[in-house]
Amino acid sequence: MKIAFIGFGAQARENLIPACSTLFGVEIAAICDSDPVKCMEAAALFNFDQSRIFNDHREMMDNCKPDAVIVACYPTEHYRIACDAIERGIPVFVEKPVASTSQQVIHLAELAERKGVVTGTGMNFRFAEVTERIKQIAGDNVQMISLRQMANKPVGTLWDYDSVLRSFLHAQTIHGLDLLIHLCGPVKRLSVANNSHGEKIMFSALMEFAGGAHGTLITSNMSPHFTFDLDVLAQDKLHIKSTSLNTISVAEVDKTYIQGENKRWCDIWAASPLSSGYSRAGYAGELLDFISAIQSGDRDSQTAISTLIETYRCMDAIEKQCCQLLAVNY
Amino acid sequence: MKIAFIGFGAQARENLIPACSTLFGVEIAAICDSDPVKCMEAAALFNFDQSRIFNDHREMMDNCKPDAVIVACYPTEHYRIACDAIERGIPVFVEKPVASTSQQVIHLAELAERKGVVTGTGMNFRFAEVTERIKQIAGDNVQMISLRQMANKPVGTLWDYDSVLRSFLHAQTIHGLDLLIHLCGPVKRLSVANNSHGEKIMFSALMEFAGGAHGTLITSNMSPHFTFDLDVLAQDKLHIKSTSLNTISVAEVDKTYIQGENKRWCDIWAASPLSSGYSRAGYAGELLDFISAIQSGDRDSQTAISTLIETYRCMDAIEKQCCQLLAVNY
Amino acid sequence: MKIAFIGFGAQARENLIPACSTLFGVEIAAICDSDPVKCMEAAALFNFDQSRIFNDHREMMDNCKPDAVIVACYPTEHYRIACDAIERGIPVFVEKPVASTSQQVIHLAELAERKGVVTGTGMNFRFAEVTERIKQIAGDNVQMISLRQMANKPVGTLWDYDSVLRSFLHAQTIHGLDLLIHLCGPVKRLSVANNSHGEKIMFSALMEFAGGAHGTLITSNMSPHFTFDLDVLAQDKLHIKSTSLNTISVAEVDKTYIQGENKRWCDIWAASPLSSGYSRAGYAGELLDFISAIQSGDRDSQTAISTLIETYRCMDAIEKQCCQLLAVNY
Amino acid sequence: MKIAFIGFGAQARENLIPACSTLFGVEIAAICDSDPVKCMEAAALFNFDQSRIFNDHREMMDNCKPDAVIVACYPTEHYRIACDAIERGIPVFVEKPVASTSQQVIHLAELAERKGVVTGTGMNFRFAEVTERIKQIAGDNVQMISLRQMANKPVGTLWDYDSVLRSFLHAQTIHGLDLLIHLCGPVKRLSVANNSHGEKIMFSALMEFAGGAHGTLITSNMSPHFTFDLDVLAQDKLHIKSTSLNTISVAEVDKTYIQGENKRWCDIWAASPLSSGYSRAGYAGELLDFISAIQSGDRDSQTAISTLIETYRCMDAIEKQCCQLLAVNY
Repeated sequence: MKIAFIGFGAQARENLIPACSTLFGVEIAAICDSDPVKCMEAAALFNFDQSRIFNDHREMMDNCKPDAVIVACYPTEHYRIACDAIERGIPVFVEKPVASTSQQVIHLAELAERKGVVTGTGMNFRFAEVTERIKQIAGDNVQMISLRQMANKPVGTLWDYDSVLRSFLHAQTIHGLDLLIHLCGPVKRLSVANNSHGEKIMFSALMEFAGGAHGTLITSNMSPHFTFDLDVLAQDKLHIKSTSLNTISVAEVDKTYIQGENKRWCDIWAASPLSSGYSRAGYAGELLDFISAIQSGDRDSQTAISTLIETYRCMDAIEKQCCQLLAVNY
Repeated sequence: MKIAFIGFGAQARENLIPACSTLFGVEIAAICDSDPVKCMEAAALFNFDQSRIFNDHREMMDNCKPDAVIVACYPTEHYRIACDAIERGIPVFVEKPVASTSQQVIHLAELAERKGVVTGTGMNFRFAEVTERIKQIAGDNVQMISLRQMANKPVGTLWDYDSVLRSFLHAQTIHGLDLLIHLCGPVKRLSVANNSHGEKIMFSALMEFAGGAHGTLITSNMSPHFTFDLDVLAQDKLHIKSTSLNTISVAEVDKTYIQGENKRWCDIWAASPLSSGYSRAGYAGELLDFISAIQSGDRDSQTAISTLIETYRCMDAIEKQCCQLLAVNY
Repeated sequence: MKIAFIGFGAQARENLIPACSTLFGVEIAAICDSDPVKCMEAAALFNFDQSRIFNDHREMMDNCKPDAVIVACYPTEHYRIACDAIERGIPVFVEKPVASTSQQVIHLAELAERKGVVTGTGMNFRFAEVTERIKQIAGDNVQMISLRQMANKPVGTLWDYDSVLRSFLHAQTIHGLDLLIHLCGPVKRLSVANNSHGEKIMFSALMEFAGGAHGTLITSNMSPHFTFDLDVLAQDKLHIKSTSLNTISVAEVDKTYIQGENKRWCDIWAASPLSSGYSRAGYAGELLDFISAIQSGDRDSQTAISTLIETYRCMDAIEKQCCQLLAVNY
Repeated sequence: MKIAFIGFGAQARENLIPACSTLFGVEIAAICDSDPVKCMEAAALFNFDQSRIFNDHREMMDNCKPDAVIVACYPTEHYRIACDAIERGIPVFVEKPVASTSQQVIHLAELAERKGVVTGTGMNFRFAEVTERIKQIAGDNVQMISLRQMANKPVGTLWDYDSVLRSFLHAQTIHGLDLLIHLCGPVKRLSVANNSHGEKIMFSALMEFAGGAHGTLITSNMSPHFTFDLDVLAQDKLHIKSTSLNTISVAEVDKTYIQGENKRWCDIWAASPLSSGYSRAGYAGELLDFISAIQSGDRDSQTAISTLIETYRCMDAIEKQCCQLLAVNY
């Protein structure tokens, strides 16, 4: 399978291309970037001649006829490039944020559906090893969930956005929010408490899911480090905790351990000291699923653009509530 | 100082009396319990003759003239006993729950104020070693806080209560909620998401504090183990985490470590392997403060009954919202 | 049971007396200290009149006729006081170090045996909650064990000792070494690597036990904090780890977990956030066992002085090897 | 730079090739395996035509003229292939174990020296992120070190070896032992306690380093999981711990923390939740250093075969002592 990369920035270099290069049967056919310097770097790195390096993504698509494209640029460009790919019938995997508005996401999903094109999105947390285990353990019966997702950026506006809050939502919150929706389904009601000020973002969202569960998303750009800690109750008996995408503990009501003890014991999983590559954080999984969907010929990927509509709807709701709260407070 | 204990149940035996016996200058003058069997046990344990063992708390107060009483019975009795002590001018420390309604708590606070009697309450989490450190580190500038407090009880009604939810609120939630108010001040707005069913309690409360901070309290009686995990942002630069009343980590924006590194480093405190006694979980601190307040003669204790009014008000609000939500859902 | 305390220093005040005061049926009958200031403090603290406060331990024993004495002074005094108690037929519990030489320990053990007097020693680590669990889990089949026990003291000579190394051995190493012998039995061969210099102690001992297991004791006075980390292989299939007397993990070959997984899962136990008192670190257990042995009338305590002979023999061997190594190196 | 891989097994596929593919300027020029099935898989995976797939490594070297070869086969083949590469002047990176005997390692080192050829070896633990930090923090002043390295394999003989112990030494112990030597230098004295039986390996080695430090290596093939835990004292004031190649804690004597506290505080580093790729466990670092050494033209790599001589000497010593001990015990 010939894959072309559009956008040769940090995310492509550090995660997507290396993750791709570990997959069997995948060939990196071309690299495209609107920045000539990055094109030169790509050519040097991959020892590619000029026939495989492009400035313009449409030219690349038309000349190279890739079996799929992987896009990691700016959100405004994502929308345009995804349209161009879908209209050409080329399966397209788009990094987050897929687009800068909900309307664009909805439009892309409709277009992909109409054209019957497989799409995928950079929702790697859905494929993180801990997520997959939590899904297996909790089944479809998550009852209460909370996620503390702290970050140290963005502390200014990103891309062509004019709001730090929206930059934060589309760069960071999208992951945690999407994961909660991935585990619990669509959201029925959402309330936000917010005391962001200036470029310092801090809010907590209380979410009631249509399926009956409820959850909290607690997030900020003011921690020095990225942290990602989940706490889940499921099946009327399981208390599941996961820290740093690296450990899971499962405490089960009435489960007995050595010598029949059950107080203060639980099961714990931790990644291997030698754990390497792109599986643990989900980069390998999201790409593998996208490629498998293309190869299967009869299904969309699990991260299809359409699966992001609910996440964007909730980001809009959070943004709106945050702004109203700020308006009230001033 | 002569102290009398009223109620000789598990909390008195396991925590309050042993904690008291480690304090200098404190003498256990008498023990009172309405259950004759427990009275006999107390007499045997302390080698007390009948002059120091009582069935009736008023008789004990009048005969023994203790310098203070410590009460650990049922909440309805707490109210009556506290009234009796305050009216006699005897300082009184009451275990949680201090009373079964907000009205009673307000009345006790007013009575104590009018009579000028020192009161204290079993809010040990305020004096836990981690709490005291978090207060020092965050100062008065907590900005966002979340507490995950899970428990495995009560799973039925307690005392003479007729609601599992209220039993849970007054037995468990009171601690976490009180701690949040202790750290962040009074609450301006409170929203609850609840999917408790039957005797299984699960709710999350989103709280906006009058001082500007906001927080979340995530709690249930469905975990096999008691857990208590805090996450705090403070002073526009500190991310503080505390687990199991046993560890604290502090990550500070831009703080540098060995070799000038700052990514992924933080400060961490952990209790000593040999940590023993009643300080870590706050039992020693709450009693010591109560006794010091009596000895000082010019201040109330830091856990005076009046300091619990806001906590009860919020428990009422949570209970009301939970019931409304359930009503809507059915 | 009337118990008298001899020595009213930090260990008595902070651990032994409070731990004792939590035991049913125990009365603190008298306190003895050669320092008049400490006697006055004891009198004030316990509201004891002069008939229960003593300067001389023999006078106290003869006047008070205690059912048992608990001794926490200096090691040289320990020997003399223990002799005096045993000769009077009074059960005696002696803090570590029981004596300053192996010869004294052997003599005390013989004397106690001859007189049929119950003795106990402050080997609290044997009764720590984690130790008791490890014994249950590993049974009599520990195969390989290693203990990292770091401390920040002593950094000078203690008591009337003239060697920092011996001070360290008798104040710190005694605990770890004794625990290894408690779990694995007597030692067949012992090799030491040592690069202590001046008052900085650092050595590792490789121990082969007569029962077949082997172990390592890695220790120093140069860490800022006390740490105590065990790693045990047992029963050809269990890997047990314990940190800070606070957690235990058990990984078992071929044990399966949720969804049939077995890679990277294990069982873990952690002390409760509210864990209080003197059980976790073993102070309550060692005293309770001593008292139970007295009450039973037909057995010695599990920490009888005789059980320390092997530990002292190994401390002597370590000291001798350390000194030879230093002699060789200079 | 054109790199050819010899041996297309699990280590090449899972770690070496993906790690290589993340390095700038590196082209995978050819793949060689003596197994025709693996050759076909390699051809399919990389979309290589027959000109880049080889059965015979000498033919590949002579036809392809690679700038370097990376070898991951069996130890006996490693020796032969490394000889062939070095004699042709081709830089060669050899996975562990480099050879099946010390004599072969010494011979390869001499040959490489004589021919002036850069060599490298798969000692990834030297380049693990935690190792590099420990080296920076401890400087050249490690004083006491202990490593607990547990594994679940091999439980039978590997390659063409006829001893489980030697298989274990060359497959597992080599890493931990090499790391200790990497951090502390050559070994002056080594004592082993061993109670391996049948295919169950368990031994502890006490090591005195020529530079003055000492250490312990505690290892077995009987844990269900691979574990790697280091404990280091350095510079008369630092206590460094590292677990699972994923965290480092540093406790420093007299270092003060927030509010001037120093008891029970330390610094801690933990890998990011999103940490991906081949740097953390050292695979990227070892390859990058090998390639840099080739490119520099004036230095050997930091994992040159000559740097393994001391490690092999110590493995021989351990093997000899283990066998003698077993002989004595029977």
